[in-house]
Amino acid sequence: MSSSDIFIGETIGTAILILLGAGVCAAVTLKASKARNAGWLAISFGWGFAVLTAVYISGPLSGAHLNPAVTLAIAIKDNDFGDLPVYWGGQLLGAMIGAALTWIAYYGQFHAHLTDREIVGGPGAQDTRAKAVEAQENQAGPVLGVFSTGPEVRNPLMNVATEVIGTFVLCLAVLTQGLNADGKGLGTLGALITALVVVSIGLSLGGPTGYAINPARDLGPRIVHALLPLPNKGGSDWGYAWVPVVGPLIGGAIAAGVYNVAFA
Amino acid sequence: MSSSDIFIGETIGTAILILLGAGVCAAVTLKASKARNAGWLAISFGWGFAVLTAVYISGPLSGAHLNPAVTLAIAIKDNDFGDLPVYWGGQLLGAMIGAALTWIAYYGQFHAHLTDREIVGGPGAQDTRAKAVEAQENQAGPVLGVFSTGPEVRNPLMNVATEVIGTFVLCLAVLTQGLNADGKGLGTLGALITALVVVSIGLSLGGPTGYAINPARDLGPRIVHALLPLPNKGGSDWGYAWVPVVGPLIGGAIAAGVYNVAFA
Amino acid sequence: MSSSDIFIGETIGTAILILLGAGVCAAVTLKASKARNAGWLAISFGWGFAVLTAVYISGPLSGAHLNPAVTLAIAIKDNDFGDLPVYWGGQLLGAMIGAALTWIAYYGQFHAHLTDREIVGGPGAQDTRAKAVEAQENQAGPVLGVFSTGPEVRNPLMNVATEVIGTFVLCLAVLTQGLNADGKGLGTLGALITALVVVSIGLSLGGPTGYAINPARDLGPRIVHALLPLPNKGGSDWGYAWVPVVGPLIGGAIAAGVYNVAFA
Amino acid sequence: MSSSDIFIGETIGTAILILLGAGVCAAVTLKASKARNAGWLAISFGWGFAVLTAVYISGPLSGAHLNPAVTLAIAIKDNDFGDLPVYWGGQLLGAMIGAALTWIAYYGQFHAHLTDREIVGGPGAQDTRAKAVEAQENQAGPVLGVFSTGPEVRNPLMNVATEVIGTFVLCLAVLTQGLNADGKGLGTLGALITALVVVSIGLSLGGPTGYAINPARDLGPRIVHALLPLPNKGGSDWGYAWVPVVGPLIGGAIAAGVYNVAFA
Repeated sequence: MSSSDIFIGETIGTAILILLGAGVCAAVTLKASKARNAGWLAISFGWGFAVLTAVYISGPLSGAHLNPAVTLAIAIKDNDFGDLPVYWGGQLLGAMIGAALTWIAYYGQFHAHLTDREIVGGPGAQDTRAKAVEAQENQAGPVLGVFSTGPEVRNPLMNVATEVIGTFVLCLAVLTQGLNADGKGLGTLGALITALVVVSIGLSLGGPTGYAINPARDLGPRIVHALLPLPNKGGSDWGYAWVPVVGPLIGGAIAAGVYNVAFA
Repeated sequence: MSSSDIFIGETIGTAILILLGAGVCAAVTLKASKARNAGWLAISFGWGFAVLTAVYISGPLSGAHLNPAVTLAIAIKDNDFGDLPVYWGGQLLGAMIGAALTWIAYYGQFHAHLTDREIVGGPGAQDTRAKAVEAQENQAGPVLGVFSTGPEVRNPLMNVATEVIGTFVLCLAVLTQGLNADGKGLGTLGALITALVVVSIGLSLGGPTGYAINPARDLGPRIVHALLPLPNKGGSDWGYAWVPVVGPLIGGAIAAGVYNVAFA
Repeated sequence: MSSSDIFIGETIGTAILILLGAGVCAAVTLKASKARNAGWLAISFGWGFAVLTAVYISGPLSGAHLNPAVTLAIAIKDNDFGDLPVYWGGQLLGAMIGAALTWIAYYGQFHAHLTDREIVGGPGAQDTRAKAVEAQENQAGPVLGVFSTGPEVRNPLMNVATEVIGTFVLCLAVLTQGLNADGKGLGTLGALITALVVVSIGLSLGGPTGYAINPARDLGPRIVHALLPLPNKGGSDWGYAWVPVVGPLIGGAIAAGVYNVAFA
Repeated sequence: MSSSDIFIGETIGTAILILLGAGVCAAVTLKASKARNAGWLAISFGWGFAVLTAVYISGPLSGAHLNPAVTLAIAIKDNDFGDLPVYWGGQLLGAMIGAALTWIAYYGQFHAHLTDREIVGGPGAQDTRAKAVEAQENQAGPVLGVFSTGPEVRNPLMNVATEVIGTFVLCLAVLTQGLNADGKGLGTLGALITALVVVSIGLSLGGPTGYAINPARDLGPRIVHALLPLPNKGGSDWGYAWVPVVGPLIGGAIAAGVYNVAFA
């Protein structure tokens, strides 16, 4: 693949990934959204099928890493770091474009949410999931949860550990893709399996930190959150921003190591 | 494919798409339905698997566009507009037939809903999702939401933008289908992937406008709503009807342009 | 396929279908079940994946019709009714075995439910889905809903129409299976698609009558309900029993007719 | 496959299976988890996609049994018990590693849950699913439900029967995998089908006992629960521990017998 195909593919693919991923967070949390309070299952399937759509579209151009930790794991496995900067650049740019597109798609909802906030947790909030959404929403700023992840229990060491474990599972699944009996690379079926692995990680390992498992997925939208001219948007929680960058990169590196020892 | 196969395939396929798609909206919103208030996840999976069923059935006859925006995107990509009128005609006719079939399947529920309306939002409506359904239901008429889409925040420019973005994602996924490593056209696996892309768009981009992403899906059932002799059915909201026609066509055209520049 | 393979395959497959299908109804409705009140999405996915499991297991033996309406549709399409009685016999026997196995698997739950009934709809039943389940449960007898279907609005003509429409969609999808580009009969992928079509029908067309769409699925368990020595079990609603037999057979026949005219 | 590949594959695969499976139980039940009270559908999909991920990763190394009952069924079918001890050893070790990893990933949630327990079932617990979760949680100890299964109605004979039936379905589906038209062993599509069969068993047969259907899945985490230095963790319910070991082994043996009589 040419560098330009890689860059274009990763930019388009990660933009679609974040558009749909931040989109489901907006759909479930913002006021005046038809999907409000649809719950954690909606978020897990939403992010998983975002991966499906993005991998399916950008796979033919760039192989659809869409995640700096995946690119790192593949580079370590192949001991070839030549394309890594191009992948990482496209991924970060794409993530920022995707977050901006989510803002456009949910323009009216952001406005309604930020300028006319209802009292969440008041008499109407008797559904326990509404409280879970509320907790996430109030974590660091009123709408930061649409863009970036945050921990339920703030403990940097353990938060990193959770991100390491989740990303390890994702990257090991990506690396073993070529070994399966009817493996055909990142084609149709590979995109589907990767998507369902991400649904799995969301359902099973997303509870503590919101499963960034992808440095670009967290950092790009956080930058966009900081830049957007939204009223009452709250802080961008930069003190936490290193966790979903460092944790996933460590997880990807460990997955590559395990792969090279046990599977290669 | 012959013109008659195209017309018959698109008519049958779009009828099944709308029967099942309007069906899940009826199932979740109408009184005396076993699935009432099953939530946004049910709606998203319901429309997605409606696409799966309809594409699977009509694919061998017509290629299963089932969506004027998809037909437009493919025509621009191939620079061949010869079959476009036949596709569009079958799609609109099929959408009307499908909406009428939904009315037959939910005959007793429409009657119960329109002639004996409970006070939604009263003491029993403590589940927050019930309120989301209520909001949709009261948008423009009591049962219009079963047939056609409507915005939560009425802002034509931004509503068009939301529909453009959603349809762009759908059409780009359809156009890249042939590029994937094990791509086999609109066969079994292609139908599945397209269906899950539609689930993804529903979960992630459906919150603001209800994701028409298909002019026939919205216009056909709206005409049927206007024609059906239902008591207390409310208006058909013709003032909004152009948005889910124009937005998706723009989105499909942009997807074709991006495809021809970046992927072809 | 030999007659004995057909009979054994249909018996095993339909038994597994009903075990898992009646099982999810028991799981969601009976007292002392961990899945109680899991909602309509659980029921729709539960029945769909029951089809997946049953078709996958019995496909190699008998082709996995598991449904007299599917057998009728295939017989009309092929104009060959020779094996029809063997299929139908195995299906009815299997459905009865499956219902009995569900009773064994949920033995403690049936006992808890029937001998110590809480007041459903009392102060605790504020979730609107609980009311939907309650309505279904009280339809004709306290636990008949675990075994057989019943209408929300009792209107035989319209109830038949709903069952005709749902079964027509199912059978047309089964008949077109062989036409898809990578169609491989009722193997792995065919089982998956058929399962998701059944999820679709459940989500979209299950609201009015509970989507029997299969005469054996309704009649076999109804017979078992009538025979089982359960206290306070209520009536078996034999007055409705013809609807989910006649409706699906008509729907299957129409699907075969449409297939022979438009697709063959 | 070499013994070392089998042992490493089963250890890694079962560790990932339990990490993700116990993970979804932690996500849905523990305090300070974003997914709290996400319901039975989340648990069923969570365990199913845990199987998908684990089978996909470990399949190329060991064939991905990940379950002593599956290993027993395959050994009986092939009348070859030579590798059985290696499989079983890897499975039990992997299950223990996976449970320990879940504890690390949810470290903060375990702490919050065990040291600051809210009164579940108090005025806020009006969602009926919250009560289902509460019941499971209080079964034998406050957090044992994250690690191991327990019955809703304690009746050893019937609890064994439920586990026999569920495991029979799972093992028969695994054994028939090779017979399907496009069967390709435990490759990509096989992993997906097996995963959805497990979702099916969870939705349909999980209500009474929590569907261990795998001796290692229950015993390994129960040992880890007994060893972990958690405050207020409650007992490990050793009196029930034999049921989810014996029941699944019987179910696997019966599946092998049925396979050899009807399918071979």
